[in-house]
Amino acid sequence: MNAASLIDNNDTRQTRAADLAGRVAAGDRRALARAITLLESRRPDHRDQAEGLVRALLPRAGDSVRIGITGIPGVGKSSFIEALGLRLLQDGHRVAVLAVDPTSPRSGGSILGDKTRMEKLARETDAFIRPTPSGGTLGGVARRTWEAIVAVEAQGYDVVLVETVGVGQSETAVKDLVDMFLLLLAPGGGDDLQGIKKGIVEMADLIVVNKADGDLAQAADRAQRDYAAALHLLRPAHADWMPQVLKCSAATGDGIAEIWSVMEDFRRATEASGRIVRERARQAATWMWSQVNETMIAELRAAPGMADILADLEPRVAAGDMGPSEAARRILDAYAGRAKSPDRDS
Amino acid sequence: MNAASLIDNNDTRQTRAADLAGRVAAGDRRALARAITLLESRRPDHRDQAEGLVRALLPRAGDSVRIGITGIPGVGKSSFIEALGLRLLQDGHRVAVLAVDPTSPRSGGSILGDKTRMEKLARETDAFIRPTPSGGTLGGVARRTWEAIVAVEAQGYDVVLVETVGVGQSETAVKDLVDMFLLLLAPGGGDDLQGIKKGIVEMADLIVVNKADGDLAQAADRAQRDYAAALHLLRPAHADWMPQVLKCSAATGDGIAEIWSVMEDFRRATEASGRIVRERARQAATWMWSQVNETMIAELRAAPGMADILADLEPRVAAGDMGPSEAARRILDAYAGRAKSPDRDS
Repeated sequence: MNAASLIDNNDTRQTRAADLAGRVAAGDRRALARAITLLESRRPDHRDQAEGLVRALLPRAGDSVRIGITGIPGVGKSSFIEALGLRLLQDGHRVAVLAVDPTSPRSGGSILGDKTRMEKLARETDAFIRPTPSGGTLGGVARRTWEAIVAVEAQGYDVVLVETVGVGQSETAVKDLVDMFLLLLAPGGGDDLQGIKKGIVEMADLIVVNKADGDLAQAADRAQRDYAAALHLLRPAHADWMPQVLKCSAATGDGIAEIWSVMEDFRRATEASGRIVRERARQAATWMWSQVNETMIAELRAAPGMADILADLEPRVAAGDMGPSEAARRILDAYAGRAKSPDRDS
Repeated sequence: MNAASLIDNNDTRQTRAADLAGRVAAGDRRALARAITLLESRRPDHRDQAEGLVRALLPRAGDSVRIGITGIPGVGKSSFIEALGLRLLQDGHRVAVLAVDPTSPRSGGSILGDKTRMEKLARETDAFIRPTPSGGTLGGVARRTWEAIVAVEAQGYDVVLVETVGVGQSETAVKDLVDMFLLLLAPGGGDDLQGIKKGIVEMADLIVVNKADGDLAQAADRAQRDYAAALHLLRPAHADWMPQVLKCSAATGDGIAEIWSVMEDFRRATEASGRIVRERARQAATWMWSQVNETMIAELRAAPGMADILADLEPRVAAGDMGPSEAARRILDAYAGRAKSPDRDS
């Protein structure tokens, strides 16, 4: 360790974080990209700076509509996001596009948030597109996306689209990052089974049937009617909003303006009812406890001897040879006995 | 502490647990009730015995069809369970009815598993009805119900019905206790909005429209068609089973035999695909980790000084004044620093 790094103390790091936050707020696009890269970093020495950065950005955050978008590959998510984004730019908004794809092995390796699939939008100065953070757990990817939302909002992006594709529990994670959840569908080739994962239809505040043009126009109408009928059977999760089914053509632009209009209705309704504020508070608490849980379980699994204990107990529980309660008690006893752990590094 | 309690050592407790398990397996009904009462007890001194009891019962468990039943108040759950139960008894089965109602303040305080609402079934020697365990967390109620399932299976009950009503996350919990999940509906008074909580329709392996008789017969037909159409839009969660919508009248008995026939189809399909075994293993692991998580978080919350730390940080996170990641890190640091905890009691 040399003299220069001795100077790299906490105050300097905090000043740098505040500087970076200032440049983000001033509209410096490269600073925004660097900020998000720092927030995504999993290096322990970056976490201090990341915390300082979030702290400095938070007062400038919160002023956007956050919309999650999911749909199976092939429904036209990129085209839809681009069409919606360009429309929003015309209306004077600034649009950020983020992505949650926990399967992506490296940043830029996912097709989500891929600028080459949204070339026109990517060229706009009032649009900011970022691929998913890579690696780690779904919870980790989601928490880093939460911080990226803070960063883009601090730079004045007032509509944030968070894209995901139906892998594992990513929709559930994105639902806890956004105000409104949109499911994008495309009419099947005569097959009503859209391949939509169970549970997602009921999670949606808005369902959009894309590709309502040309040969698929009639099929799109039918799909819109069918989903509207299905939604009608379900009680809305909240009293302030009845989920709707719209259709559009991302290719021609038909229906896009109406979709944004409905999104604005949603925003007004959920602001009036206070739901936005309540939900964002609940989401932040969820991510806090999610991180506490993940860290505690990871420390348990990594503690001396625990891997052997789990390798013994987990198969016995799975096979029905030991009850879950006894196994849990044994795991906790072993952890309490063995985890004379060194002080955790901050 | 007197001499007699000094004799009450571990060996004695294990012998008693083995004895009780033996009496349960031999068909002693009172022993079964006592066994479940012991398993439900949250007294620390009972947990050792409970563990021994589960260990002794497990080898005799597993041979049943486990079916979860949910539906809003008024759809006729008790009548349906009674009609189904009586039918199963006619076919030579032995039926246990359990319940998960985390809001119940005391055992017997819930209307679920209430024998007075299933009087005919309650009088049958081959039927066993038990109200929900009371108090504690939903996870705790669910884990104790898991152990009650083991106990009733050990006494030869080969169909286990677990009833719940749509409170909080109880359906999600029951879904992790059973092989098959049934949603019971009743035709509305002209109002299609059945009041069903979002997410439950998509969780169901079987939807049953009850009260398909008299004035409501046509409405029941319509409801059956509407839900069948809605289900058709969703991809089944598993390749081995397409969820179905049936109708019945618990009052007249119409449709009950068909429902059991479909349940047997489900059993065969999910046995053939191996899903029953996989799911039960996954569920057991879920309950094990659920208990590890709950205990660890409870210990964190109870550790010296942690209540104050949480009272400070949680509102700040909810208000957007501190990021979730920083708050999580501070909580964990505080816990690591303060929890010089005494050895946990086994």
